[in-house]
Amino acid sequence: MLALQYRTIGSAPEVVEIETPEPGPGQVRIKVSAAGVCHSDEFIMSLPDDQYVYGRPQTLGHEGAGVVDMLGDGVEHLELGTSVAVYGPWGCGQCYECSKGSENYCTNAARYGIVPPGLGAPGAMAEYMIVDSPRHLVPLGDLDPVKNVSLTDAGLTPYHAIKGSLAKLHAGATCVVIGVGGLGHVAVQLLRAMTPATVVALDISEDKLNLATEVGAHYTFPSEQGTVALVRDLTHGEGANVVFDFVANQATMDLGQAMIRPQGDQVLVGVGAGVLPVGLMAGAWEASIRSPYWGTRPELIEVFDLARSSGINVHTEVFSLADAPKAYEKLKNNQILGRAVVVP
Amino acid sequence: MLALQYRTIGSAPEVVEIETPEPGPGQVRIKVSAAGVCHSDEFIMSLPDDQYVYGRPQTLGHEGAGVVDMLGDGVEHLELGTSVAVYGPWGCGQCYECSKGSENYCTNAARYGIVPPGLGAPGAMAEYMIVDSPRHLVPLGDLDPVKNVSLTDAGLTPYHAIKGSLAKLHAGATCVVIGVGGLGHVAVQLLRAMTPATVVALDISEDKLNLATEVGAHYTFPSEQGTVALVRDLTHGEGANVVFDFVANQATMDLGQAMIRPQGDQVLVGVGAGVLPVGLMAGAWEASIRSPYWGTRPELIEVFDLARSSGINVHTEVFSLADAPKAYEKLKNNQILGRAVVVP
Amino acid sequence: MLALQYRTIGSAPEVVEIETPEPGPGQVRIKVSAAGVCHSDEFIMSLPDDQYVYGRPQTLGHEGAGVVDMLGDGVEHLELGTSVAVYGPWGCGQCYECSKGSENYCTNAARYGIVPPGLGAPGAMAEYMIVDSPRHLVPLGDLDPVKNVSLTDAGLTPYHAIKGSLAKLHAGATCVVIGVGGLGHVAVQLLRAMTPATVVALDISEDKLNLATEVGAHYTFPSEQGTVALVRDLTHGEGANVVFDFVANQATMDLGQAMIRPQGDQVLVGVGAGVLPVGLMAGAWEASIRSPYWGTRPELIEVFDLARSSGINVHTEVFSLADAPKAYEKLKNNQILGRAVVVP
Amino acid sequence: MLALQYRTIGSAPEVVEIETPEPGPGQVRIKVSAAGVCHSDEFIMSLPDDQYVYGRPQTLGHEGAGVVDMLGDGVEHLELGTSVAVYGPWGCGQCYECSKGSENYCTNAARYGIVPPGLGAPGAMAEYMIVDSPRHLVPLGDLDPVKNVSLTDAGLTPYHAIKGSLAKLHAGATCVVIGVGGLGHVAVQLLRAMTPATVVALDISEDKLNLATEVGAHYTFPSEQGTVALVRDLTHGEGANVVFDFVANQATMDLGQAMIRPQGDQVLVGVGAGVLPVGLMAGAWEASIRSPYWGTRPELIEVFDLARSSGINVHTEVFSLADAPKAYEKLKNNQILGRAVVVP
Repeated sequence: MLALQYRTIGSAPEVVEIETPEPGPGQVRIKVSAAGVCHSDEFIMSLPDDQYVYGRPQTLGHEGAGVVDMLGDGVEHLELGTSVAVYGPWGCGQCYECSKGSENYCTNAARYGIVPPGLGAPGAMAEYMIVDSPRHLVPLGDLDPVKNVSLTDAGLTPYHAIKGSLAKLHAGATCVVIGVGGLGHVAVQLLRAMTPATVVALDISEDKLNLATEVGAHYTFPSEQGTVALVRDLTHGEGANVVFDFVANQATMDLGQAMIRPQGDQVLVGVGAGVLPVGLMAGAWEASIRSPYWGTRPELIEVFDLARSSGINVHTEVFSLADAPKAYEKLKNNQILGRAVVVP
Repeated sequence: MLALQYRTIGSAPEVVEIETPEPGPGQVRIKVSAAGVCHSDEFIMSLPDDQYVYGRPQTLGHEGAGVVDMLGDGVEHLELGTSVAVYGPWGCGQCYECSKGSENYCTNAARYGIVPPGLGAPGAMAEYMIVDSPRHLVPLGDLDPVKNVSLTDAGLTPYHAIKGSLAKLHAGATCVVIGVGGLGHVAVQLLRAMTPATVVALDISEDKLNLATEVGAHYTFPSEQGTVALVRDLTHGEGANVVFDFVANQATMDLGQAMIRPQGDQVLVGVGAGVLPVGLMAGAWEASIRSPYWGTRPELIEVFDLARSSGINVHTEVFSLADAPKAYEKLKNNQILGRAVVVP
Repeated sequence: MLALQYRTIGSAPEVVEIETPEPGPGQVRIKVSAAGVCHSDEFIMSLPDDQYVYGRPQTLGHEGAGVVDMLGDGVEHLELGTSVAVYGPWGCGQCYECSKGSENYCTNAARYGIVPPGLGAPGAMAEYMIVDSPRHLVPLGDLDPVKNVSLTDAGLTPYHAIKGSLAKLHAGATCVVIGVGGLGHVAVQLLRAMTPATVVALDISEDKLNLATEVGAHYTFPSEQGTVALVRDLTHGEGANVVFDFVANQATMDLGQAMIRPQGDQVLVGVGAGVLPVGLMAGAWEASIRSPYWGTRPELIEVFDLARSSGINVHTEVFSLADAPKAYEKLKNNQILGRAVVVP
Repeated sequence: MLALQYRTIGSAPEVVEIETPEPGPGQVRIKVSAAGVCHSDEFIMSLPDDQYVYGRPQTLGHEGAGVVDMLGDGVEHLELGTSVAVYGPWGCGQCYECSKGSENYCTNAARYGIVPPGLGAPGAMAEYMIVDSPRHLVPLGDLDPVKNVSLTDAGLTPYHAIKGSLAKLHAGATCVVIGVGGLGHVAVQLLRAMTPATVVALDISEDKLNLATEVGAHYTFPSEQGTVALVRDLTHGEGANVVFDFVANQATMDLGQAMIRPQGDQVLVGVGAGVLPVGLMAGAWEASIRSPYWGTRPELIEVFDLARSSGINVHTEVFSLADAPKAYEKLKNNQILGRAVVVP
């Protein structure tokens, strides 16, 4: 079969012919219908040799959808031909976190060498893909896999971030989304569908602010220091209840902290690191800072339920598997509005 | 001043001239801008002498809005001329429940004889009204008092009912509203604004089902036994996550219980009583039944915040104070669609 | 191997020799170290032929513990020789409820014929037992399997019931446990360990009230109508915040409802059914009634963590497998204080 | 009457004779029975002139208890002679936060110049004290005011901090208390009474670690870098679920962050400031950092309920009003174990 693999440190990923895999006991093979292109892929391919820990050749793609194609021994309650999406942050299935479906925080994954597809295990950028357990599949029903595959990360990650702050997103609350990219433009829609909060979107690109408005943001502003005063004005001087930061560099972290109100949440969703002043004498009282990672199994089921009932619209640009390297190039050059999807 | 009073058991309320009241220490006088007409008023006026406990003459009106007109001694942080709505379920302000703003469940009210305006204390169907404390006022800002006064009960009561089931109204959930009257047609709007749940409305009147559709219900069905199968169909056989019953007679309670799924909530909001089978062998596992009463102070603030940001639309029919008795007559005859409001 | 089976409707269970089972793909065989004797077993053996739905011969035992003895194909991350307890309310592992670990509410179990061990599938009252998935095992570590096996139901069921009311069991709250049997005497200990609430235990047997005191109840009273006044006295007239009813017949349900305060929870844990008045005019405002069933996977892990850190003490009477029929006889005659455990 | 006042920047507080105050409308005068001595007093008296914002002369004492002695006009439902404690973080009583009892986060306090007693308004270190509203009083019942007055801050502050992390303090969880001073030694007791979590206490003083053991800590360790490994050992390598830092300097913040597990809470309760690395690539995934301030009205009621039912024991050293300056001197020199209390 054909697969898109990252083979050489520093080089672009390549389309190669490899053996079609067979499912072992308890595993499921899907025929891939769509695979999403994500900044994290870019991120790991940018790592120098001594920091790259994912193995090579790495078949890319941690956002995957497909059709159930072959069942390993002992797999029950799953029909061939079912259209499914893949839950990516695989865990052991047995620990406390996994028992709640929080496999993204599996306490055994590191010890047992369990890694997500596309980020260690063979991913979805291929004609076929092995999924380690039927519990990692969510039925899609009538949902178009191409339009919706990205919800497995670009939907699930903001969904999980929002769920963790849901109690603070009551009527009268105001939240800020920093960065209207692949995840951010879904976050705006999720916030509108799930909460009565007023949604403010910030970005440095006018195109992305226009996209934010199109998908439901109440207000859009440039992502810059002066916006702090605008957000305070909107909120009678009190500041934002929650800031979701999909960029998460030092500049956006400082910006977010400057506009948070007491008891608010500053949620750093983007892949980054910085330093912030903390303590009773440093920031807004009881404002919390946290950096969630991906999401849980029940949350992914909810995301697809929401897509069915409320029509979350991922702004999608489609590429063939042969053209997948171009998708990564465009992403690197910041030329993708919304999300790129590869259809093998 | 003029006031609408219930004076004689079994008779209609009357417009009479009474003394304009003065605020005592800690109290506030408002010039009434609007007062809502509610089924509960009808209910108490239907009680025989030996069950009627509210005192007479009773100035009606537990949904009130007005303009701050005179401050009693010691009242601070409140400006004359402010447009306000009145929080109705007054409590002592000191007990555990009141400390959380749950004055609707004040544990001292009975002991101290504290009663709501219009339901014991003089109500809002008058030119002026005494509010016992500034904490029972919520600023309206630019909101039209006539269009929004009913939110103090017809908004707050469903809002409180929904808040108590919010965790069950996640993406993928389905809820049912039984009875699309004054409270029910607001409930539909609140559910759409606050949650991603699918909203099903039931009523016996086609006009009311049309109103439900107009204000956002995803599905409408007649309120009858056969609807149980329709709701199960919509939910893959599992049943409704939450049923809000604004009628709450034996028939609707039976209907609601028949369509609840395991772990669901059956919320009896209407003023009524019935009997239901309970226990592990009787109904859906862990489905709960409860009957909430009115709502809390922070919830009323949230309701008006929501009205400002999302435009809750109470379907309103306006009457002068002189015509207020007609409003009650129309309500009794089930001729009001939405809510009647009296403007003194 | 030897097993205790229910074979003939209306007869006592029998110890018989049957084939030792082999684990299929994904399954695990344990060598049983202990199995708990439960009222539910009694209950199903009391059913007439036309209501008995569990299959025969039925190897009894839904409370099981053992040592991992043989792994089916594809089972990973589990070591032979590990001491484990069995999570009993098996589900499909794939649906929304199972994804959260709420397999006790699996939405596919009925459709797929998935049943708990001892209640449809072969149970733990045997030398060996097949567990359908490693996810249904919880490591016991140093915990004595005989002393702790009953926590899989007699611990998990009250734990789940308490978790659902945890927010109402704050400092200053009072809860009532009706019925100090196998589950009730564990409930008292869980309430003391998990919450700051005052615990009141009711029973009709003085021995059981003494056991309640011994395991930590603050107050004990006879389970009778007059106790309502005592509970109201203890709570400044307000009533109990939560009532856990481990008997759940009409008499205890009436008793529980009579002592609940507004916003309280009446939790019917025992296997029973009754009818109760409901609605705003019928009971305490916003007091809820619900009947939970067993518990979730993460909760079982928490229960054993609690047993390790706080020393939950199940009052245990031990029987050999040969004597297991006697254990059921004593249970039937209400001669077991705490819990009977069979050691094969 | 006599009062302890801070009058001159940089000098010790002085006992002076001042006018006995009268309550205005809505206010209450109490005859003080006890007043707690707190590090925050020390802190404000250490500020240079240009940072000191509390007014002078400042009657100290933000932890107060007394007997209701005189009622202002309009005060109802409060009896002379009632023994009460004072809720200190006064708010406007009307805003959204105050409506929930979160007066510690009143959004109007700064605008209206509302300040706590002892921290702007006249405090409890005097024979009489004016409380601005009866809602700021909690009845003590039989509780000894001297032994319990400190719960108004040294109890309420950790209680509020714990409440905000309660969902993470489930069975199997481990929490760490850094600093076993006035607040920390109460925190240990609250954690034991309210949660099933394992409690680890850290301090640099052996006396304080002994006090921690005495009041219920499961483990005590020196507050130093090496302790990170000990906490990881105790928790199977995963780290603490929650760290409560009552010191909150850079060293303890670094220590706390080093021992937090993914999804944990680092709660900075002490008065301090520092900087910490944040972001997905910086710390434990979804571990949050926050700095709560004091507590809410319902929480203070719960604290005293808990003192009644579970006997929270504040380790107390008593001083007369004349000796109050000595109490501050001992506190400054770190010679108080537990809490100093002044009895006028």
